[in-house]
Amino acid sequence: VMASENDEQLYTEAFLHQLGELRSLAINHSLAYELTESLTTEVGPRLAGSPGDAKAVAWAEAKFKALGFDEVRLEPAPLKRWTRGVEQAEVLSPFPQPMHITALGRTLPTPAEGLEGEIIHFADLEALKAADPALVKGKITFISKRMERHQDGSGYGKAVGARGETAQVTAEKGGIAAIIRSIGTDNNRTPHTGAARYDEAIASVPAGAISNPDADLLVNMLKRDVPVKVRMTLTSHWDGDYTSYNVIGDMKGTTQADQYIVIGCHLDSWDLGTGAIDDASGCGITMAAAQLINEHMGPLKKTIRVVLWANEEYGLSGAKAYHEAHKHELNKHILGGESDFGAGRIYGFGTRVSETAMPVVMAIAEQLKPLGIAYSNNQSGSGADLIPLRAAGMAVFGLKQDGTDYFDYHHTANDTLDKIDPAALAQNVAAWVVVVAMAANADQDFGFGLKD
Amino acid sequence: VMASENDEQLYTEAFLHQLGELRSLAINHSLAYELTESLTTEVGPRLAGSPGDAKAVAWAEAKFKALGFDEVRLEPAPLKRWTRGVEQAEVLSPFPQPMHITALGRTLPTPAEGLEGEIIHFADLEALKAADPALVKGKITFISKRMERHQDGSGYGKAVGARGETAQVTAEKGGIAAIIRSIGTDNNRTPHTGAARYDEAIASVPAGAISNPDADLLVNMLKRDVPVKVRMTLTSHWDGDYTSYNVIGDMKGTTQADQYIVIGCHLDSWDLGTGAIDDASGCGITMAAAQLINEHMGPLKKTIRVVLWANEEYGLSGAKAYHEAHKHELNKHILGGESDFGAGRIYGFGTRVSETAMPVVMAIAEQLKPLGIAYSNNQSGSGADLIPLRAAGMAVFGLKQDGTDYFDYHHTANDTLDKIDPAALAQNVAAWVVVVAMAANADQDFGFGLKD
Ligand SMILES: [Zn+2]
Ligand SMILES: [Zn+2]
Ligand SMILES: [Zn+2]
Ligand SMILES: [Zn+2]
Repeated sequence: VMASENDEQLYTEAFLHQLGELRSLAINHSLAYELTESLTTEVGPRLAGSPGDAKAVAWAEAKFKALGFDEVRLEPAPLKRWTRGVEQAEVLSPFPQPMHITALGRTLPTPAEGLEGEIIHFADLEALKAADPALVKGKITFISKRMERHQDGSGYGKAVGARGETAQVTAEKGGIAAIIRSIGTDNNRTPHTGAARYDEAIASVPAGAISNPDADLLVNMLKRDVPVKVRMTLTSHWDGDYTSYNVIGDMKGTTQADQYIVIGCHLDSWDLGTGAIDDASGCGITMAAAQLINEHMGPLKKTIRVVLWANEEYGLSGAKAYHEAHKHELNKHILGGESDFGAGRIYGFGTRVSETAMPVVMAIAEQLKPLGIAYSNNQSGSGADLIPLRAAGMAVFGLKQDGTDYFDYHHTANDTLDKIDPAALAQNVAAWVVVVAMAANADQDFGFGLKD
Repeated sequence: VMASENDEQLYTEAFLHQLGELRSLAINHSLAYELTESLTTEVGPRLAGSPGDAKAVAWAEAKFKALGFDEVRLEPAPLKRWTRGVEQAEVLSPFPQPMHITALGRTLPTPAEGLEGEIIHFADLEALKAADPALVKGKITFISKRMERHQDGSGYGKAVGARGETAQVTAEKGGIAAIIRSIGTDNNRTPHTGAARYDEAIASVPAGAISNPDADLLVNMLKRDVPVKVRMTLTSHWDGDYTSYNVIGDMKGTTQADQYIVIGCHLDSWDLGTGAIDDASGCGITMAAAQLINEHMGPLKKTIRVVLWANEEYGLSGAKAYHEAHKHELNKHILGGESDFGAGRIYGFGTRVSETAMPVVMAIAEQLKPLGIAYSNNQSGSGADLIPLRAAGMAVFGLKQDGTDYFDYHHTANDTLDKIDPAALAQNVAAWVVVVAMAANADQDFGFGLKD
């Protein structure tokens, strides 16, 4: 029997027994894998605004219905469409060699016939920012900083600034284009895309990422202290307005049906791979968790809302549209979590909830222990799609996945189903089942109007 | 003191002392890495007949001279040139998705606009061979057998038949094109090229390899038991005559200068990567071994001949030309070895020599033990470029490298410098130094006219 410190029982023995049974079932269940296989095989790449986007929306609506969700809705998420085109780069001199490049998301195009220029090399974004514009003018900037590998993915934050800012800083200093070393931990010839900052009012230049082996090659050429001249062609461009959709499946609550436990994933993906770890697996995990709870525990007190968010990758379009559409009822969103860090085994549980909810959190943490998951703290992050709701004060939780290999594949052609270990995926589902079922069956809320 | 069983001393104490010193020096020496870095950076892809071929020949000639080889020669190696063109494939239905394909070497082209057809799936080449031609007629064959991973690379022989034969068997049965799962052990979106059998007199069809993740995807679509239709475009084609060159560097012997210890690598590479592990590393290892012996031990009795072979990959053109040009003196080639299995640490030493040479072999094996290398047997294989000399009866040796990861990168865009561990590369050099120096300073030969 799980009891709070003052011996008031938060969950019944019957509920906890049922939850334990479901946790055991979930850890051997294949539903999440089947959903992930289905989305990556039958839809595959689903860049916001591309043909795959509409196919993914149709897929999601059909799957929610087939899984028995009580209510399935499409909510429009308008966006400005960005389309990838040709992407090519090569060293022209001193040693002609092809390079594997991918356009950064939202980048402006080069001329169709490409552009040529001499490379000016910086160790990192800070060095570019500090550079004399006279040195940058007319050149192609190249940032060679390599991302570090860590289990929690913390190398990403330290490296990703170059992806966001290099194009704008280059433009400001008179450069003609920008190349960055891929934000990734692998040594594959598969460059990593991902969004660059974009603002119509701020000058920018065409920008691409080359793979780590290509970055090494360029660095080795530059070490020889001779000018390195490159040609690059990126025909990516902005391509009008488009309406995508958040696809939402509700498992209705009983006594507190207007209180929502908001979970989910983003439905869009970059277009280079099939979006298996980013983020079909997150969709598989959260859809499966909700379905298994409903099938094996029946409706709980609160509503479990699974949102498959639109265009996380280059606009947070779904997140913004949802916030706008639901702004009259934000306080009904009592706890949120997003699965968007691949399919690695979960090792940690964190929250950002009111102090009054900590006994419930501790009760949940107790039920996560058999899965090898430890509670971390009450300053947890949450997924990018929850930024607007979180900013409005919604309580959130995070289930921390092992991301040691995540950035080997993230945003590359290599983001494919084979990168997912079905056993690790099922462990994720078991953890989500525990958190979501206990949150949905709590009598109390988790606080609202919270601040970081 | 190393002595043969009958106590006759094969090598002087002074020689063995000097060899031990050089072995210690070599294992920390960077020359092989520098050469490998130079060839992959300054030349890069060097498909036989391509612009990189001529650059590689010029590179090799200049390096041999810079390294102090006594005689440097170019010997012509005529070849029929094959050129890679566009390579694209996609699933058209039921689930449109791009696939990553590469043309098999020597394949015939599709029409420039591509060809379309329904996939007929076979588990392996044997299943295709056994198939009713009526089922194959008008279709695109697909072989999905996956290569096994083993330290000695023995999975390759079991899988590579599909690369060689699928196109011809498909043509014979009326198929229109062939797709194979890459002959590789990785899960990267980088398909593996490599030569298919080709004979002007035998019908064939355009053939390509898709990456392992793409093969998985295709298999998953086919499991759904609906017709899978594919479009593929390969504009690879035969492109006239070309003359490449074997580049040969001799370190002349003293008392037996007309007896050759023939070592080397192949200078050409496939065009997808920079040919680091296949086979710049082999060039670096053998060129460095010869140079270090010459610098630190001076000329030995026999001549050390380093041959950088032309067009190993799709013709053995250099091997054939050398055999033809030297057929009046084949018996001067008293022992041969080629380094062409990447840059992994050496764990085994094998030979194919006469029984009379076994005391020398055992003496060499003794000096390899400090490097963690064990003698295997006297039925050793040798590199592909030694096939003609070996068939003529030349004695050979093999230094067996750890190839656990070799087929992750072999013949892909991922064959780049970062895949090479400088410490393992230097261990290779130390081993080659031991074998080559001892063979070159043996008083006796290793037998000729040997048969397998
Ligand atoms: Zn994501
Ligand atoms: Zn992403
Ligand atoms: Zn080779
Ligand atoms: Zn090869």
